[in-house]
Amino acid sequence: MSRGWRVLSLHHVAVAHGADPSCEAFFSDLLGGATHMEETAGFVERMYGAEPAFTQTLEATAAGVVQRFVDTRGPGLHHIAYQVDSIDAALDDLRERGVSLIDETARTGGMGTRIAFLHPRAAAGVLVELVEEGEGVDG
Amino acid sequence: MSRGWRVLSLHHVAVAHGADPSCEAFFSDLLGGATHMEETAGFVERMYGAEPAFTQTLEATAAGVVQRFVDTRGPGLHHIAYQVDSIDAALDDLRERGVSLIDETARTGGMGTRIAFLHPRAAAGVLVELVEEGEGVDG
Repeated sequence: MSRGWRVLSLHHVAVAHGADPSCEAFFSDLLGGATHMEETAGFVERMYGAEPAFTQTLEATAAGVVQRFVDTRGPGLHHIAYQVDSIDAALDDLRERGVSLIDETARTGGMGTRIAFLHPRAAAGVLVELVEEGEGVDG
Repeated sequence: MSRGWRVLSLHHVAVAHGADPSCEAFFSDLLGGATHMEETAGFVERMYGAEPAFTQTLEATAAGVVQRFVDTRGPGLHHIAYQVDSIDAALDDLRERGVSLIDETARTGGMGTRIAFLHPRAAAGVLVELVEEGEGVDG
């Protein structure tokens, strides 16, 4: 495909949960403890080992997208993220081809990445995130 | 952890869907086409590239667990699978520790693997599969 970008790998799978500590306990036990934690507005994000593809948990801590998901569907799988070589090229190409995007341009994600979400209607109901890894001091 | 087994990597993430062809179309476009397809009772399983972690789609073709999932929750993320070094040791250990299992012993999965599912109540609502890769002629 000569579309100017490509998926490098599955980057992470995310699980949304609420205050119940059993989600973190399970993945800590399975994967050896969170290797990264970041607080953002409305949720705490934790990354669990098992490189090269991470497992991410999103703990809702206030009203917001994660809390809404947990309230509506219960705790469970939230999204899949794919690492791409160029997120700007990906978004330009997808937009041109009429793919529904939540983020029209890339924004800053965890661990110095640049991220964007596609709309679930683009992917048969699956929330898909694109991730471009940061380099050097940004990484 | 000296529990006699360990997770080697995230093996795949599975998406359940029905007859709607947009799910396959999306992942084919994103990941370059299914690299493996297998029909089983009630569903067709397809694996999409992006090594080392695959994306799997499960297309419900008759009554069964996949059709029930799609009927109840709509198409979407279905389970996460982790590759382990010894599925027998993992199941023995998990059973001993009182973790709820769907499969008490390993059974044959796609592509010559041995697999077992944990019960979602073991993992805060997430359906988790363990996979042991086959070797040689089994692989």
